[in-house]
Amino acid sequence: MRKILVIGAGKSTAVLIKYFQDKALTEQLHITIGDISLRHAENLAGNHSNSLAIQIDVFDKTSRENALKNSDIVVSMLPARFHIEVAKDCLRYGKHLVTASYVSSEMQELDDHVRQKGLLFMNEMGVDPGIDHMSAMKVIDNIRDQGGKIILFESFTGGLIAPESDTNLWNYKFTWNPRNVVIAGQGGAAKFLQEGTYKYIPYHKLFRRTEFLEVDGYGRFEAYANRNSLQYQSIYGLDDILTLYRGTIRRVGFSKAWNTFVQLGMTADDYILSNSENMSYRDFTNSFLAYSPTDSVELKLRHYLKIDQDDIMWDKLLELDMFNPDKKVGIPDATPAQILQKILIDKWSLSDGDKDMIVMYHKFGYELDGVRKQIDATMVSTGEDQTYTAMAKTVGLPVAMATLRILNQQITLTGVQIPIQKEVYDPILKELEAYDIRFTEIEREYMGYNPDGVKG
Amino acid sequence: MRKILVIGAGKSTAVLIKYFQDKALTEQLHITIGDISLRHAENLAGNHSNSLAIQIDVFDKTSRENALKNSDIVVSMLPARFHIEVAKDCLRYGKHLVTASYVSSEMQELDDHVRQKGLLFMNEMGVDPGIDHMSAMKVIDNIRDQGGKIILFESFTGGLIAPESDTNLWNYKFTWNPRNVVIAGQGGAAKFLQEGTYKYIPYHKLFRRTEFLEVDGYGRFEAYANRNSLQYQSIYGLDDILTLYRGTIRRVGFSKAWNTFVQLGMTADDYILSNSENMSYRDFTNSFLAYSPTDSVELKLRHYLKIDQDDIMWDKLLELDMFNPDKKVGIPDATPAQILQKILIDKWSLSDGDKDMIVMYHKFGYELDGVRKQIDATMVSTGEDQTYTAMAKTVGLPVAMATLRILNQQITLTGVQIPIQKEVYDPILKELEAYDIRFTEIEREYMGYNPDGVKG
Repeated sequence: MRKILVIGAGKSTAVLIKYFQDKALTEQLHITIGDISLRHAENLAGNHSNSLAIQIDVFDKTSRENALKNSDIVVSMLPARFHIEVAKDCLRYGKHLVTASYVSSEMQELDDHVRQKGLLFMNEMGVDPGIDHMSAMKVIDNIRDQGGKIILFESFTGGLIAPESDTNLWNYKFTWNPRNVVIAGQGGAAKFLQEGTYKYIPYHKLFRRTEFLEVDGYGRFEAYANRNSLQYQSIYGLDDILTLYRGTIRRVGFSKAWNTFVQLGMTADDYILSNSENMSYRDFTNSFLAYSPTDSVELKLRHYLKIDQDDIMWDKLLELDMFNPDKKVGIPDATPAQILQKILIDKWSLSDGDKDMIVMYHKFGYELDGVRKQIDATMVSTGEDQTYTAMAKTVGLPVAMATLRILNQQITLTGVQIPIQKEVYDPILKELEAYDIRFTEIEREYMGYNPDGVKG
Repeated sequence: MRKILVIGAGKSTAVLIKYFQDKALTEQLHITIGDISLRHAENLAGNHSNSLAIQIDVFDKTSRENALKNSDIVVSMLPARFHIEVAKDCLRYGKHLVTASYVSSEMQELDDHVRQKGLLFMNEMGVDPGIDHMSAMKVIDNIRDQGGKIILFESFTGGLIAPESDTNLWNYKFTWNPRNVVIAGQGGAAKFLQEGTYKYIPYHKLFRRTEFLEVDGYGRFEAYANRNSLQYQSIYGLDDILTLYRGTIRRVGFSKAWNTFVQLGMTADDYILSNSENMSYRDFTNSFLAYSPTDSVELKLRHYLKIDQDDIMWDKLLELDMFNPDKKVGIPDATPAQILQKILIDKWSLSDGDKDMIVMYHKFGYELDGVRKQIDATMVSTGEDQTYTAMAKTVGLPVAMATLRILNQQITLTGVQIPIQKEVYDPILKELEAYDIRFTEIEREYMGYNPDGVKG
């Protein structure tokens, strides 16, 4: 029996556990699921004979270590900030580790020690980061193997609502952490490369500088820039690239309407509104508008942001009920972002039967034998229900597959890693296809940063 | 002889020194001027018989203490962050202290000790803060003495260029620290009270939510909100007030044009532009605009910010030469704000003979015997030359006057103070009139927060 310890029984973990349980007999796996809530762990363990649910308090060294000592490999599905303590334990007791989170600087610092002990800490093994790395590096390595030179790489991912569950004017529901959606893009200007020039977008313009994307069978999407598109430039070996852009996908029109909140100041998370608890939704909206002895909150907002009454933007705001004088905020010492999140959760939460959808879109521009070419690779994954969501599948499956391959010594890397090597991405991308997570690659004319082919 | 030690020989100090020198004989004053640059100190001391220039390194304890021990009162005209060490020395050696700077929390913490020693540390004794406190409290106390209740207080100050030196389209030149102008309003939403409701303006909307002000003989001005209008609410005794707003005065049209920089992201000071040193002004402007294979930087900017070619806003941008491909930034690792500052200094620096102007405008709304009334108080002070600037006079004179009055025991307060008591503001406001710094008070109909008297 090989013993897998999974810490954290959150949203993405169900798919992961099921993958291990389905292979428990053939692969001789024993799965221990540890969570601060024993009930959550038990729900995931079910009555599967090779699964055990335990309570783990990740802040309690003894609790952590007892569970860990006994295992052959550890999967941490905890919130990212909690990984480091688990990682240190893994180093101490000589266990491999797999996470779906970004490599923190503290995690990176362990690299030498991890390598010396012959261990592998595989991070960024989910969807974004994760499947994005693997699917991009597959095409990039392939182009390079043919002698091509990458001149453009744009990569977009979005967690969205599936078309059949898309029932509001925003074409959006919360399929993941609402807070991350509300504060998305904050903390500094977005920086990227366009045709050799660094470009910067301040937060308050981020949602007005979108790009359009077309996905066969799914129609049109838009994307706004991530804060740092250059993060993986060196890691992917793209130091000489002309265009490098990473973005977040939404349905067309979302960003323009979201910009309303940004412009009003409703997404700010750096100060507290006085008397927030007793505010109505209408009061909240009115706090960002000048006082008027005569004009309604509605007209003030329309005038301030120049929204005509027959503009769909206006209907989107009305749909959120943000002018309601009777609905109370009810949160003491709340930031604008916390109140906006509450207003949105009222309307954007998933209903029973709603399905989510993950969309990923990569563009690769390259030069081969003096000719400029382009490959577009797209992936759409739709959830099955509210447990086997697209998000849970695309995060949980690659984590599970990597874990099993490390156990089976099919992945033999050491150190603190992310999945950019062929020995990792090739078999895992292939196995993901069996779960309907597959990329469609299209060769097309190279458009550079002039997708409409405009002439001067 | 009473010995005054003035530390820091910066811009505002000339007027201050001259005030003391003019009164040196009648008031028996000896003035020691200490600065890190002996030459600066000597320039101010001149050949006046009762003046001595010395070198003081404020970071050197011995240097500080030797100068200080010998004096009867200390005036610190150093940058605000350096006051605290001088203040601690004053406490140790039992000297009064006068500054023109905001009371820092460290300074406030000394209050008990200062009081116990029977000393007075008088801060915020310049123009803003300083004359604003004094002139406001005079009217507020007067209304209260008559039994009135203050329901509205709005207070605006601006450091501007005098009409006779107003020679650019922005109606603005740098009469004080350019950096403070470039980063003005950053660091969080502006918060104020309008008719009993807290209002918030995010930074990116600050320069679009201005108010107009009319000053007899000087025409129309505008003001944008300061970050925290509520800072003095309790100190002024205005806890029940309905409207409380503090703002910065500019000529009409400045803010709308300044908003161009904010929208582009050029005022950001929280990140560094790649390769800033070798950028041209045109490159800088272009970094905030999307790449285009066909369109000019000019057209991209006009389209992005919706500026027509016959809009004066456009001429304002052209006047700054920000599309020039030949002018180089030349600053390594510069933030956008640092580069913008350089571009502006090229055009907005004072020419020989240019005069500055300080404008202050207070509105007081109150209820007396069941009737609502309003008093507007305005002050305009114009500079004489580039030494006796309006800024140097309005900062230096009240500091000097307070210093002399403390020496003469006409001010007998103790502790860490700001000038809000009648014993301070009454004689000093009166004496300032002799230097042409005077407020004009007009009683007018109470407009509340409806200055145009609009009906619903």
